[in-house]
Amino acid sequence: MIVAMSVRATEEEIENVLKRLEHDGYAGQMSRGAERAVIGVIGTGFPEDYKDHLEVLPGVESVTRISKPYKLSSRDFKPTDTVIDVRGVRVGGGEFVVMAGPCAVEGREHILETAEAVGDRGAVMLRGGAFKPRTSPYSFQGLGEDGLRYLAEARERCGLPVITEVMEPSEVDLVEGFTDVLQIGTRNMQNFPLLRRVGQARKPVMLKRGMSATIEEWLMASEYILAEGNQDVMLCERGIRTFETMLRNTLDLSCVPMARRLTHLPIIVDPSHGTGKWYLVKPMALAAAAVGADGIIVEVHPDPDNAWSDGPQALTPDNFGDMMKALESVVEATGRRLWKVPATV
Amino acid sequence: MIVAMSVRATEEEIENVLKRLEHDGYAGQMSRGAERAVIGVIGTGFPEDYKDHLEVLPGVESVTRISKPYKLSSRDFKPTDTVIDVRGVRVGGGEFVVMAGPCAVEGREHILETAEAVGDRGAVMLRGGAFKPRTSPYSFQGLGEDGLRYLAEARERCGLPVITEVMEPSEVDLVEGFTDVLQIGTRNMQNFPLLRRVGQARKPVMLKRGMSATIEEWLMASEYILAEGNQDVMLCERGIRTFETMLRNTLDLSCVPMARRLTHLPIIVDPSHGTGKWYLVKPMALAAAAVGADGIIVEVHPDPDNAWSDGPQALTPDNFGDMMKALESVVEATGRRLWKVPATV
Amino acid sequence: MIVAMSVRATEEEIENVLKRLEHDGYAGQMSRGAERAVIGVIGTGFPEDYKDHLEVLPGVESVTRISKPYKLSSRDFKPTDTVIDVRGVRVGGGEFVVMAGPCAVEGREHILETAEAVGDRGAVMLRGGAFKPRTSPYSFQGLGEDGLRYLAEARERCGLPVITEVMEPSEVDLVEGFTDVLQIGTRNMQNFPLLRRVGQARKPVMLKRGMSATIEEWLMASEYILAEGNQDVMLCERGIRTFETMLRNTLDLSCVPMARRLTHLPIIVDPSHGTGKWYLVKPMALAAAAVGADGIIVEVHPDPDNAWSDGPQALTPDNFGDMMKALESVVEATGRRLWKVPATV
Amino acid sequence: MIVAMSVRATEEEIENVLKRLEHDGYAGQMSRGAERAVIGVIGTGFPEDYKDHLEVLPGVESVTRISKPYKLSSRDFKPTDTVIDVRGVRVGGGEFVVMAGPCAVEGREHILETAEAVGDRGAVMLRGGAFKPRTSPYSFQGLGEDGLRYLAEARERCGLPVITEVMEPSEVDLVEGFTDVLQIGTRNMQNFPLLRRVGQARKPVMLKRGMSATIEEWLMASEYILAEGNQDVMLCERGIRTFETMLRNTLDLSCVPMARRLTHLPIIVDPSHGTGKWYLVKPMALAAAAVGADGIIVEVHPDPDNAWSDGPQALTPDNFGDMMKALESVVEATGRRLWKVPATV
Repeated sequence: MIVAMSVRATEEEIENVLKRLEHDGYAGQMSRGAERAVIGVIGTGFPEDYKDHLEVLPGVESVTRISKPYKLSSRDFKPTDTVIDVRGVRVGGGEFVVMAGPCAVEGREHILETAEAVGDRGAVMLRGGAFKPRTSPYSFQGLGEDGLRYLAEARERCGLPVITEVMEPSEVDLVEGFTDVLQIGTRNMQNFPLLRRVGQARKPVMLKRGMSATIEEWLMASEYILAEGNQDVMLCERGIRTFETMLRNTLDLSCVPMARRLTHLPIIVDPSHGTGKWYLVKPMALAAAAVGADGIIVEVHPDPDNAWSDGPQALTPDNFGDMMKALESVVEATGRRLWKVPATV
Repeated sequence: MIVAMSVRATEEEIENVLKRLEHDGYAGQMSRGAERAVIGVIGTGFPEDYKDHLEVLPGVESVTRISKPYKLSSRDFKPTDTVIDVRGVRVGGGEFVVMAGPCAVEGREHILETAEAVGDRGAVMLRGGAFKPRTSPYSFQGLGEDGLRYLAEARERCGLPVITEVMEPSEVDLVEGFTDVLQIGTRNMQNFPLLRRVGQARKPVMLKRGMSATIEEWLMASEYILAEGNQDVMLCERGIRTFETMLRNTLDLSCVPMARRLTHLPIIVDPSHGTGKWYLVKPMALAAAAVGADGIIVEVHPDPDNAWSDGPQALTPDNFGDMMKALESVVEATGRRLWKVPATV
Repeated sequence: MIVAMSVRATEEEIENVLKRLEHDGYAGQMSRGAERAVIGVIGTGFPEDYKDHLEVLPGVESVTRISKPYKLSSRDFKPTDTVIDVRGVRVGGGEFVVMAGPCAVEGREHILETAEAVGDRGAVMLRGGAFKPRTSPYSFQGLGEDGLRYLAEARERCGLPVITEVMEPSEVDLVEGFTDVLQIGTRNMQNFPLLRRVGQARKPVMLKRGMSATIEEWLMASEYILAEGNQDVMLCERGIRTFETMLRNTLDLSCVPMARRLTHLPIIVDPSHGTGKWYLVKPMALAAAAVGADGIIVEVHPDPDNAWSDGPQALTPDNFGDMMKALESVVEATGRRLWKVPATV
Repeated sequence: MIVAMSVRATEEEIENVLKRLEHDGYAGQMSRGAERAVIGVIGTGFPEDYKDHLEVLPGVESVTRISKPYKLSSRDFKPTDTVIDVRGVRVGGGEFVVMAGPCAVEGREHILETAEAVGDRGAVMLRGGAFKPRTSPYSFQGLGEDGLRYLAEARERCGLPVITEVMEPSEVDLVEGFTDVLQIGTRNMQNFPLLRRVGQARKPVMLKRGMSATIEEWLMASEYILAEGNQDVMLCERGIRTFETMLRNTLDLSCVPMARRLTHLPIIVDPSHGTGKWYLVKPMALAAAAVGADGIIVEVHPDPDNAWSDGPQALTPDNFGDMMKALESVVEATGRRLWKVPATV
């Protein structure tokens, strides 16, 4: 941590900062520049607010934190990429993984039909919500445990591992019993009791970026899960909130190569929520592949016009198939390949 | 709901929209303008996504929702201001209410001392966190149940009702047993299971605005609480996230008169989190009074330099006393008065 | 335009709106829904603020504009893609165009060397600033007319058409005499006198998106140029301002397919300014190709460590060559091809 | 400037940074912390991009600028408040100054009538646009020189000094001949040729904050004017762009006390553009007074429903009079007073 004193700071104020550091168990190293004194703080394990504490001392102009606040998720801590095995599908291992399915599970037939449709066209994991966070209390909130059961049945039929959202700590046991990946939604990125709880689960976790979370806050949130012992965390960019109103969110693809430098965790992109319009899903999926993401998660619905939620951003199975063809070309153009379910003999 | 067809929409596409409306149980009323056809949708109780559904039909240019998506929190539903009685303190009744106390309860002596300090200087409610949401898992997370006990003891001693945060549904019973107002933090504004649960509680709720929530989303979140039967909801503006980096957040004071037109719920302002700097708290508190808020909630700490969290935004008791004097003048200049604890005989 | 009356609007207020419309020369078409009256406004050519005018009339709840405010740039007006010929390079015609060069022209040798370096590696247009908008008045402001001269000389030598920025109306004549494309920078997107002036020029214009401009405002800005008679406008996305601080800007790639639906103008992406970090330029350039942009404009410098401006986002010639190879694969994977300078016999 | 090396930086990389600093004429002062090496850079007058230059050197983790990039506008440079005399009205001298008038001058009678109306009710300066920046080329663009003439006539009649916008360098001479304060609009905050030109004018300048400009960029823009010799610059906050759509902009009142600490220049608030709704102008004007602004600039129109631009945010003269009464109380509650035109005997 670096403390820059004001140009007009007095000797007494400088002395006071040095004493404060000593009192808190750190060493302060003075250096006098052309205009002002600067104090380097030697030590580790600073409290979260320590920067702010120093900043309000008299005569202090600004304080800069040097160390990253996250540890376990950092490449400094673990230089090699984390690869997560989800029932045989490797996420983060170099291949490009496509997860697909409806926003919400709407019924047994519905999810079986969708699972088959996406599996046939190249998806290797099945998404579908059983517990749905909705802006309005008057909207469809998901089928709950029945939805989980239908998802599990779809997995047995089609062989696709399942990813589904969990919304509160007390539901983790239940959801974990049915799913292969636990999804934490954008609104819960900083639901700390929930993060802790899935950190104790034995299933991998997909952590969606909060819609106004910085990359650093996202990594800090993953730290909550990792610190509880669950090392299988994948990140998911799903669009951030900006001033633009024409799109539901602004999909931030530059966060993929940026986060890649900072963390060893796999990074998935969600072009469906990231744009909110089905006709933007294909171009943004191709861009996600080109930019180097480890995979995408997309919404597919057999009849989007009649979907119970998020229909406008869902692809039809045919559009999904069309996207998969284009995607394969782009993935291969970047020297990688699509992860594929091995053909059963 | 209004459906505007594209300039190039065909008769068939128009027909198709009308059929879809009929199929969904609504009446469509056509009107042909100079450039395009526009269809008014007659009905109520549209599903949350119905706008988006119509928007992706062929030939549709845009769809506009006319009805507000919130009901119970709307002035259309209840024109008169909601007044909440918190152990004799009236919130929303015209007087200006000051809630104060430390960010986190740090110990028994600490909260007793702070309660006395803020009560002596004019605060009428005591704030203090026992369960703390922290960006980092390595930061102090609050004293938990002990913190609640100390808060309750401070209430007995000083006569100030207490407000404290609750972070997960399973803790509501515990927290409700000690506090007078349940606070929902900014990161939990869309933690829907938690909103539902406090909607079933018998204590008033303060709902902080999410740091990137629109006013409409904030009112929708309050709807979750109201819909469960708890009518005592107060809103709290605490700063939104913008591109500006010099301040922790941008305190949006214009949301106070704007929300006032839309809802009957009381509106409180938090200038401490809203700015993140103690030296901005006083001017922003005065501005909150001038703009017409029902009260403020501010952080006060007997020794901010040594606070365990958020010290830099906490006022000392002396600074708090200084702010209260200036505040009283501004409140009175706007024709209102500070709510005061009646002097005990 | 659609006027939705409040649920509590009186008959007199409804009548008043209808009279106002009539007075302004429009016809109002009433329709009474389940909850409220809605008035369709029949007419065209509404003044820019007419929506706001109606919105403040007593009893009005909201007003929705249906028509797009831009005309000449709209696909409704001109359904087919605009293709711009820049000395034989076709922008917007399906091929992918790469423009490259230094941020600022630093000298004669410097630009000649860079032009050769980028031309050899596949760039088909040369960028370079002679007049530089700088945040600080104390920074290098460009070589001015000398810079233009060097650019023109580089064009003669290497055969690459030139694009350079113009910052004020009175400089347009001078810059037009040397350059092949006039660039309007992000800070000048709403410098209306400048837009008008380049609208009268006989050279194509590249209009960068303002760093906080909506897609609609961007198209409105292009309208200023088109309305003066210059039809050769290409748009350039260069990153928008968001809350994220780790990147200089957030490159909004979803605006490419979105704007494509709305306008016939070609769309270029600038991954250098869009990220501010040279190591993000290649992945974002590939993503721009995959998402369907008509080309990119990137910064290349023979010695980025010693560049006079924006060095950190500039590629070395070697990195540029590496990017071009990867780019060619991705462009071809999407069924297009790189525009190439025909080999001279 | 402080260079923090990566935890994994090699000795060679550290050496390389030190050599680079020496080569550029600066001294580097090494300090080895618990985890990493940190290098303090001793010197002044760093180029604008020097931070970025160092940041891309191998082994460097981050670079922090310590010095403020603005000088003449800084309190470090000039600790005492700047007071600007505008024909006898003192801006920044402690009193609260109210500027009022229509968005655009619509005609001779119109501005004379408005000037009288606002002067009678306590305004001490007259605003009105003759050259109008409009989002659409098809909107009313102002009366130009005629508008200036009418403004000057209004000044003669009512004795109120005049403030009006100037949009391009070549118009400064003309506008300066008529106005008392030159206004730079939000879209031109970084129109550097224009800033330079008004820096050479002999009239005070009001510099509106760009709608997505940080406080630091705003001060850097003022630096362009000050550096040309014009010391009479007042700043004007007029709302920033955020994700909220219900309001035209988000008026950032916290920037007033924040900027006050950083600069000696007077700070004015524009609650009309800052909210876009006339019914929010009064509460936000009161808040601006309470927060410590030096004055406000508000839009008043004799007949807002028929204004040629921005009618919805204009107050009627009666509403303006009502606001002035409330404003006087709040200003006095904060220990200041309204600047008043001395009664002519």
